[in-house]
Amino acid sequence: MPRFCLTIEYDGTPFVGWQVQAAGTSVQGVLADAVFALSGERVRPTGAGRTDAGVHALGQVAHLDLARDWRPDTLRDGLNAHLRPHPVAVLAAARVADDFNARLSARQRHYRYRIVNRRAPLTVLRARAWHVIRPLDAETMHAAAQLLVGRHDFTTFRAAECQAKSPVKTLDRLAVARDGEELTIEASARSFLHHQIRSITGSLVLVGQGKWTPHDLKSALDARERARCGPMAPPDGLYLTAVDY
Amino acid sequence: MPRFCLTIEYDGTPFVGWQVQAAGTSVQGVLADAVFALSGERVRPTGAGRTDAGVHALGQVAHLDLARDWRPDTLRDGLNAHLRPHPVAVLAAARVADDFNARLSARQRHYRYRIVNRRAPLTVLRARAWHVIRPLDAETMHAAAQLLVGRHDFTTFRAAECQAKSPVKTLDRLAVARDGEELTIEASARSFLHHQIRSITGSLVLVGQGKWTPHDLKSALDARERARCGPMAPPDGLYLTAVDY
Repeated sequence: MPRFCLTIEYDGTPFVGWQVQAAGTSVQGVLADAVFALSGERVRPTGAGRTDAGVHALGQVAHLDLARDWRPDTLRDGLNAHLRPHPVAVLAAARVADDFNARLSARQRHYRYRIVNRRAPLTVLRARAWHVIRPLDAETMHAAAQLLVGRHDFTTFRAAECQAKSPVKTLDRLAVARDGEELTIEASARSFLHHQIRSITGSLVLVGQGKWTPHDLKSALDARERARCGPMAPPDGLYLTAVDY
Repeated sequence: MPRFCLTIEYDGTPFVGWQVQAAGTSVQGVLADAVFALSGERVRPTGAGRTDAGVHALGQVAHLDLARDWRPDTLRDGLNAHLRPHPVAVLAAARVADDFNARLSARQRHYRYRIVNRRAPLTVLRARAWHVIRPLDAETMHAAAQLLVGRHDFTTFRAAECQAKSPVKTLDRLAVARDGEELTIEASARSFLHHQIRSITGSLVLVGQGKWTPHDLKSALDARERARCGPMAPPDGLYLTAVDY
């Protein structure tokens, strides 16, 4: 059966997350429904990143096998027509080799976390960024972030329910930058632990507010204890931006 | 009575527009309600720009008179507390001279129009930008836009219900630029006619799609006939970004 790779964008707000769950609407579920409406085939697409409830994607990647050898553009447009009115869009579709696996073949995953650092509540960016009132020192956050880059045991920054076999991961990039009232955290790695970026972001915000020193962040990492993590950042500001193969 | 100036941000999606209307929720109305909840005074704030239903603001400016001489920061925070859950936020409040008028004292108004130019439907930018599928040539649009800059009779690009005394306005800046799949149109003038930017944007998109030449745009302007305007762009992509005094 021909295998297809889809690049997908979504607003995570109304979903229980990427993955199909016992209750609630998932991105994977509405995509599977669109595939069924278009093709008559019941297929569950495999995604590169299992984004949580409320987390967005600008470049999620998924693969699926279909009986018919669709023209990729027809598949993309047909799925988009059936995805309405859900805020999920197929940006691109391509025919790929049978051994391509959106999850297992991924070499690098890229995430962005958006923070709006100001006193006034959010309006146009509500549910699209994390609103942090207390002033953040982005330069100190960036400096502290570099202490997390590299191969480490990230137990401190891992959800209790994380299913990964090992807490040891290599974080290739963690960059914090400010543009006016907005801070952006860019994170790249081959793979991430469950809640890793939101856990790291919450702790970096403590550094940015002067509640933690960069050394405190390093101590928290070295402790390998979930209890040492800062309060986890909300899903609103997190975007899966791209996956490299 | 002390006069205050407020800088206001809002998501225009749920509102009938800035101005109080017979039916529906307006930005001015929810702001007046917040002022009443905070101060017990019934005051209708005067805005610099009467944005339409669905049009957003990143820097709307309004003035109002209150009996009490509020500390500006207290006024801002108090209004924000009472504005919840509406997507309206007071970014800044300041005490101003009695002859300051948010509408009449404005020297320059700045608007931005966002277009996402791609095949796939919008998700995270739904109701935040205009989705245009057919490829747009931003450079030609920018060149054509320069034909509208300056002092002209803008009857062609003016709503039938526009209440301005004269259709003659000076457009100081109209710049079109592309950044990836997004096009931005920046427009600046002392004042605008009703629907002027959305009318111009709709016509510029015809130029960008090759349906009109830049010369067609100039002819439409010179005709001074509403019927010669292109289809009006939707409110979703329009933002009042700033007002200069």
